[in-house]
Amino acid sequence: MKTFRDPVHNLIAFGPRDRLIVDLINAREFQRLRRIRQLGLSNIAYPGAEHSRFVHSLGVTHLMRRILDAGLEQSGFGENLEEYREVALAAALLHDVGHGPFSHALETVTGVRHELFTTAAIRAPRTEVHQVLEAAETGMADRVAQVIERRFEPSRAVVKLLSSQLDMDRTDYLLRDAMMTGAGYGSFDVEWLLHVLRLGEVDGDLEVGLDLEKGRSIAEDYIMSRYYMYLHVYFHRTTRAAEVMIEKLLARAKEVEAYLPGFTALNTLLSGGFEADEAGVVTFMELDDGMIWTAMHLWTRDPDPVLSDLSRRLLNRQIFRGVDVTDREKEMALRERLLRRADREGLPHEYYVITDEAKSAAYKDDYVAPDVSVGSQPFSAESRIADATGGEGAGRGWTGADGQGQPTERVYLFDSAGRPHELSQVSFLVDAVRHKQLRVRRILCPEEWLDERE
Amino acid sequence: MKTFRDPVHNLIAFGPRDRLIVDLINAREFQRLRRIRQLGLSNIAYPGAEHSRFVHSLGVTHLMRRILDAGLEQSGFGENLEEYREVALAAALLHDVGHGPFSHALETVTGVRHELFTTAAIRAPRTEVHQVLEAAETGMADRVAQVIERRFEPSRAVVKLLSSQLDMDRTDYLLRDAMMTGAGYGSFDVEWLLHVLRLGEVDGDLEVGLDLEKGRSIAEDYIMSRYYMYLHVYFHRTTRAAEVMIEKLLARAKEVEAYLPGFTALNTLLSGGFEADEAGVVTFMELDDGMIWTAMHLWTRDPDPVLSDLSRRLLNRQIFRGVDVTDREKEMALRERLLRRADREGLPHEYYVITDEAKSAAYKDDYVAPDVSVGSQPFSAESRIADATGGEGAGRGWTGADGQGQPTERVYLFDSAGRPHELSQVSFLVDAVRHKQLRVRRILCPEEWLDERE
Amino acid sequence: MKTFRDPVHNLIAFGPRDRLIVDLINAREFQRLRRIRQLGLSNIAYPGAEHSRFVHSLGVTHLMRRILDAGLEQSGFGENLEEYREVALAAALLHDVGHGPFSHALETVTGVRHELFTTAAIRAPRTEVHQVLEAAETGMADRVAQVIERRFEPSRAVVKLLSSQLDMDRTDYLLRDAMMTGAGYGSFDVEWLLHVLRLGEVDGDLEVGLDLEKGRSIAEDYIMSRYYMYLHVYFHRTTRAAEVMIEKLLARAKEVEAYLPGFTALNTLLSGGFEADEAGVVTFMELDDGMIWTAMHLWTRDPDPVLSDLSRRLLNRQIFRGVDVTDREKEMALRERLLRRADREGLPHEYYVITDEAKSAAYKDDYVAPDVSVGSQPFSAESRIADATGGEGAGRGWTGADGQGQPTERVYLFDSAGRPHELSQVSFLVDAVRHKQLRVRRILCPEEWLDERE
Amino acid sequence: MKTFRDPVHNLIAFGPRDRLIVDLINAREFQRLRRIRQLGLSNIAYPGAEHSRFVHSLGVTHLMRRILDAGLEQSGFGENLEEYREVALAAALLHDVGHGPFSHALETVTGVRHELFTTAAIRAPRTEVHQVLEAAETGMADRVAQVIERRFEPSRAVVKLLSSQLDMDRTDYLLRDAMMTGAGYGSFDVEWLLHVLRLGEVDGDLEVGLDLEKGRSIAEDYIMSRYYMYLHVYFHRTTRAAEVMIEKLLARAKEVEAYLPGFTALNTLLSGGFEADEAGVVTFMELDDGMIWTAMHLWTRDPDPVLSDLSRRLLNRQIFRGVDVTDREKEMALRERLLRRADREGLPHEYYVITDEAKSAAYKDDYVAPDVSVGSQPFSAESRIADATGGEGAGRGWTGADGQGQPTERVYLFDSAGRPHELSQVSFLVDAVRHKQLRVRRILCPEEWLDERE
Repeated sequence: MKTFRDPVHNLIAFGPRDRLIVDLINAREFQRLRRIRQLGLSNIAYPGAEHSRFVHSLGVTHLMRRILDAGLEQSGFGENLEEYREVALAAALLHDVGHGPFSHALETVTGVRHELFTTAAIRAPRTEVHQVLEAAETGMADRVAQVIERRFEPSRAVVKLLSSQLDMDRTDYLLRDAMMTGAGYGSFDVEWLLHVLRLGEVDGDLEVGLDLEKGRSIAEDYIMSRYYMYLHVYFHRTTRAAEVMIEKLLARAKEVEAYLPGFTALNTLLSGGFEADEAGVVTFMELDDGMIWTAMHLWTRDPDPVLSDLSRRLLNRQIFRGVDVTDREKEMALRERLLRRADREGLPHEYYVITDEAKSAAYKDDYVAPDVSVGSQPFSAESRIADATGGEGAGRGWTGADGQGQPTERVYLFDSAGRPHELSQVSFLVDAVRHKQLRVRRILCPEEWLDERE
Repeated sequence: MKTFRDPVHNLIAFGPRDRLIVDLINAREFQRLRRIRQLGLSNIAYPGAEHSRFVHSLGVTHLMRRILDAGLEQSGFGENLEEYREVALAAALLHDVGHGPFSHALETVTGVRHELFTTAAIRAPRTEVHQVLEAAETGMADRVAQVIERRFEPSRAVVKLLSSQLDMDRTDYLLRDAMMTGAGYGSFDVEWLLHVLRLGEVDGDLEVGLDLEKGRSIAEDYIMSRYYMYLHVYFHRTTRAAEVMIEKLLARAKEVEAYLPGFTALNTLLSGGFEADEAGVVTFMELDDGMIWTAMHLWTRDPDPVLSDLSRRLLNRQIFRGVDVTDREKEMALRERLLRRADREGLPHEYYVITDEAKSAAYKDDYVAPDVSVGSQPFSAESRIADATGGEGAGRGWTGADGQGQPTERVYLFDSAGRPHELSQVSFLVDAVRHKQLRVRRILCPEEWLDERE
Repeated sequence: MKTFRDPVHNLIAFGPRDRLIVDLINAREFQRLRRIRQLGLSNIAYPGAEHSRFVHSLGVTHLMRRILDAGLEQSGFGENLEEYREVALAAALLHDVGHGPFSHALETVTGVRHELFTTAAIRAPRTEVHQVLEAAETGMADRVAQVIERRFEPSRAVVKLLSSQLDMDRTDYLLRDAMMTGAGYGSFDVEWLLHVLRLGEVDGDLEVGLDLEKGRSIAEDYIMSRYYMYLHVYFHRTTRAAEVMIEKLLARAKEVEAYLPGFTALNTLLSGGFEADEAGVVTFMELDDGMIWTAMHLWTRDPDPVLSDLSRRLLNRQIFRGVDVTDREKEMALRERLLRRADREGLPHEYYVITDEAKSAAYKDDYVAPDVSVGSQPFSAESRIADATGGEGAGRGWTGADGQGQPTERVYLFDSAGRPHELSQVSFLVDAVRHKQLRVRRILCPEEWLDERE
Repeated sequence: MKTFRDPVHNLIAFGPRDRLIVDLINAREFQRLRRIRQLGLSNIAYPGAEHSRFVHSLGVTHLMRRILDAGLEQSGFGENLEEYREVALAAALLHDVGHGPFSHALETVTGVRHELFTTAAIRAPRTEVHQVLEAAETGMADRVAQVIERRFEPSRAVVKLLSSQLDMDRTDYLLRDAMMTGAGYGSFDVEWLLHVLRLGEVDGDLEVGLDLEKGRSIAEDYIMSRYYMYLHVYFHRTTRAAEVMIEKLLARAKEVEAYLPGFTALNTLLSGGFEADEAGVVTFMELDDGMIWTAMHLWTRDPDPVLSDLSRRLLNRQIFRGVDVTDREKEMALRERLLRRADREGLPHEYYVITDEAKSAAYKDDYVAPDVSVGSQPFSAESRIADATGGEGAGRGWTGADGQGQPTERVYLFDSAGRPHELSQVSFLVDAVRHKQLRVRRILCPEEWLDERE
């Protein structure tokens, strides 16, 4: 009925049973994802990383269908999943529909996490995705939203297949980001992963895990792939600096009220942000990467020197340089010197001398519930920037203190009797990685303000 | 010194000898290519085809360097090419720097081929690429432009390596487009191609060709790859329709003078176009995909119903449907019916009932000299649309009558005595393909105006 | 239940439904295929081509199962094929079980085609494969043999999926041989091929074909892959020469009765060959590549100078050189000269000056019924050598005059109404290739007997 | 001049400068490697793992040349390596020329390590490899042998590139074994590895290492690949069992003096083994996989029940089952029971109830000097079997106590100042893996002697 070719999965074919999915793909809110790059500004460091959230969402749906149609038969869960096939596929397709361009910077300015826009878009009667879902079956929109909110009670398995340590979302984006960046160590054997995927019970809750005997090495490889992708791609020095710059740019535009005639969505953003209600969502859906880039073009001619300068730098890839700081004293000295320089240039400190701090653990990637508003409880500098690492890290708060130690963080291996074993307890390798945090502390500033050696 | 990862070539590393190239990459005109997709609207049919002209240009430069550094030693041309290394690499990098977004549509509206902007940008004193080139060596900018204009006399080999039947430009875009679209039959064995590449003389002119004994099959495979890419990707029904729609959209915006405040480059385009002079080039360089998409967002609220309707359709991927027409009578009847429908809707014929006609030969891909202005001699409907097929076909005029039968169309195989053999004379397969034209004649209109069966 | 990793297909997993297949894999006659290389002596030209018939047979079975389990649902044949699943998979697994080492050379000496040994082995009560099949279901062995003999009446589809122009056997060996030889142009997009595979009716007989609209390019690519594999791999000059040498070696060993103590199977071969009866089959099953190579080691010390010389040459890769001959007169002169040389060396003409002649058409690959004995009607020199090209060409008689123009040679494309279109009538490319024969006429002799220039 | 296609490296082309290498490839001792599988019996568990030592040796030579021609320029060692190009390539090509079939089993019976045969073959005047080397330059054979013996004083770099933690030998076999087995987690990004390879000084000795900044992740990935290959491939339960069976088979054949008429090399082996002198080497060079398999065919008819039974089992893949034992008491009980069973069957204990014990550390892979004869100082049961894990582990003694802690075990990363950093000190991951031993303790016996649950 509808067949896509894909550089990652080759054929993605939707048949007669998948009419709902095909209709959802045609909905305008989903089509909009073609204009939002999955990795935001990562192409600044990895020029091939230009893929959109559209093609990633197709990939997640494809994997979800593969696992529903074939992979879990062996687990004895095949039958019961069949009845949730449609809701599971729809949730897989739509899980990112609320993403804006440069997702974290936007979330900081709007104070609303993208998940809220996702579920609001699905529930808003005026969106096409809502109309398509309800046309298929009354109440479907709400059920799909519940899966994304991780509180779909009829089937925990569907929830876990979409968002857990081994979910289809992560599986697709790791593979796709690895391929497109060309970062070889990020890839892993997805065929084997799907082959050894199991559903099992952990403390009475259904969990997605792997076969203990056959799955340990692939679990390790998967954790390591993630670790390398964070280290080299999501945490890349230049990408992070560019993301911070975009955030600063939008903050400045908001501060100086740099509205642009006709840019309804952008102006709403700058004048206080969107409500996560129907009107807000419909306006929000106009935002895409191109609109932000075009605003930068226009802002290069703005009278505000900060706004025009940051715009020009981003357009021409004159990205701030990040200097690693470990010694407190040296940091202070450097900071001092840079602030004096900013003063000489007549530029405000907070936009030109920025402390960027982040940390993450490779095997700790808790999924923050989408109903946690970030607006009301402002992020610490640290967690804010940690979130800004793009990829899917963005908006997932994997540094958040609250989620630690909870089941969703864990990868389980099921033995032949169905007993779960937490990965770090059966893998010395993951145990070693588990508590190893990637720590970043950098001062960002214009490159020309630094000496050659810095 | 500067290393890129690339999904196609893996490592693209520029060393100490390549400082000029690294500086050119950092120039703003080249950075702009990050915001222009190589295949324009092809991602509408192949969602993975989202790569930019930036990454393609890096790929061409990489291949050029591989062949200069290693491949041609055997031909005995290695030494003399060494002295043109820098100009060859710079030309490879910059060969597409004058491309605008949705290249052909733009060329139709501006009346200027992108090659003219390319060479103008290289020669204009105010551009960064010019300044970088001249800083390296006085006169370098002009020499690089000459290579791109195919009239660099000191080394015909450099010209041919950049633009001929087997050039590095084509080699990269075929491989890259095949990989990103996921269209498997478009790929070929580039290692073997480079291995058997030869320089030789044909009628006193230097030509890039292949070893007769070892290169026949790869030559055939290459021609076939091209043929399949045209058939399935560059000629794709939906992609072509979308390209025609973009062209119509810009024409309408020009007609109704739909200027947008602050969109300097776009407004220049709509008010008569750019001169290919310095001022024109500098303004032109602000255009990118995002600006056109943003204009569409704004135009959805334009009072002109045609402009707002076409914008909405393009944003939401409601692409016109193309109906193949072969029978003249049936075509007339269909056309009649559609025109009446347009009248009922109060919509102008020329924007809603469009004849799309194109043809190409698989092994006939003449390269039109860049100084042929298309503005002065308006295209026939046929060649215009044929050109609109995107990929690199755009702007290459492979239906142009003038170039036929000329040397540049030909692929040569050199025997052990250095004698050239034209490919179609030693390959029955290419001989069969040679005169086989892909012909397309379609009527495009809104899908909902057609019956289900059409 | 049993999972294999495979360089071509990645995972080949047999589940609880496939117990029969797992048991057949464990049967000694099937295990023996580990010791027989798929491409005989091709690794002499392509050192990576060392894969066995064992791994190829697993691949065919894997493809057969994929197509049975999923691919043909759309054709409306899914249901009826389900009941033949087991017999189809068993036939796929066992279709090559009667192959000997260096298959054609052996067939020439034994006068029995490998298909006869295959079906005899399946039907012989003393073989393990027979016992496993009959244990599963009485009569199963005979049914499986019928599929291989192409006369299984209950389902023509099963027959065609195993042996026709687009069968799973060919699909696996083309992919595998292309990958292992490293000959890039031999590969094609198997995912798309399976996606567009259709069953349809041609003149009242069921046929495996492709979707007309979606399958034309892959059909062309498949035919071309085959063409290139014949041209560069199966017809490789050195490989062919080595194959002729093995044939001559065995003929000489037979002539001089060079029996080796303990080599029961080989001695039976040399003393007149095997009957295709139970005893014959059981003895035959001891033959493998290693036994022939070991015989050569022993024969290097044989008093017969021809036998010891040919053995040494084969072990040390001193392969005869093939000189292309096109001019009758020059051929005669060369032959004269070489025969005189042989006389001087005291070596018999027929072993040292050999005319090798073969031809094939790329899209003509008729499958000779297995009950045609080649012993009674000695091959012409031409067809004999043509058969010797190894790969699966061996034993398929694609030069045989009898099969030409018959349905089994044809590839069909089915339109949306189910009407079949023969490929060469809808593809100008295949039409061009169709009647193009690869012709080879060479004189083989020791390399040192030739001048440098020859 | 001579071009190979390869599934791993695609093109392996030797040009006019490489005449010596081409001549060595044609030497009979090197051609013999076509008949010896790189991974011995691993294809029993991974059916695709059928590649020979011939193609692996080509791969090592290819990598060595790549690194000599390009990669080390940056290190400032490029120039001085140029003069050792020929000796380095010859050593790379010939480093495995002394391997016999099923290498470890053979070493146990002969009491001579394959490295001794390698260097003896290179130095023996009657071998073709010796003659080719000396024809190129007097003394060349000895110099090549010295490189392999790791005591080539003129260039430590050449020694280290061939045998150290990051040598070209390992690099090829890990990649190749991973690809051929289909074990995805064994692969790594070889392009990046070569890109960041550096030569540097450690305690006054030249060492091959990696760039500290760019090489840490690839170093980790490389160590992990190795770890997984040992875990899943080289240590595979069934493969190990089969290797032990081959060893027992040969020991039994020696014990019962099961000489076979005409099998000169095998008989020499059984009657006491080869001297590592000229005559010994020349006889040894007749051994290959096929001869051992053919001997098994003949021994199935031997009157000795052990010899015939083991032969039959190996030919028909009825491999002993390995039961993991961890509890000393249970082990004793199981052993008791199995010994009684053996008694009942009238079979000798030592051939039917075998303790298999092995351990290895992932990042500890010391290279035992080739002049350590294993014959004079019999292995402990443990180290003997550990060595039997095939792959390149065989004959490298990575459990040997003597080599621990020595420089050759270490991977170094060089910082920008050229200072070496040992990998486990800059990688918490490798530090975790470093002292983690893979331990195996199993009892092997016929599968049918065990209960279902065991």
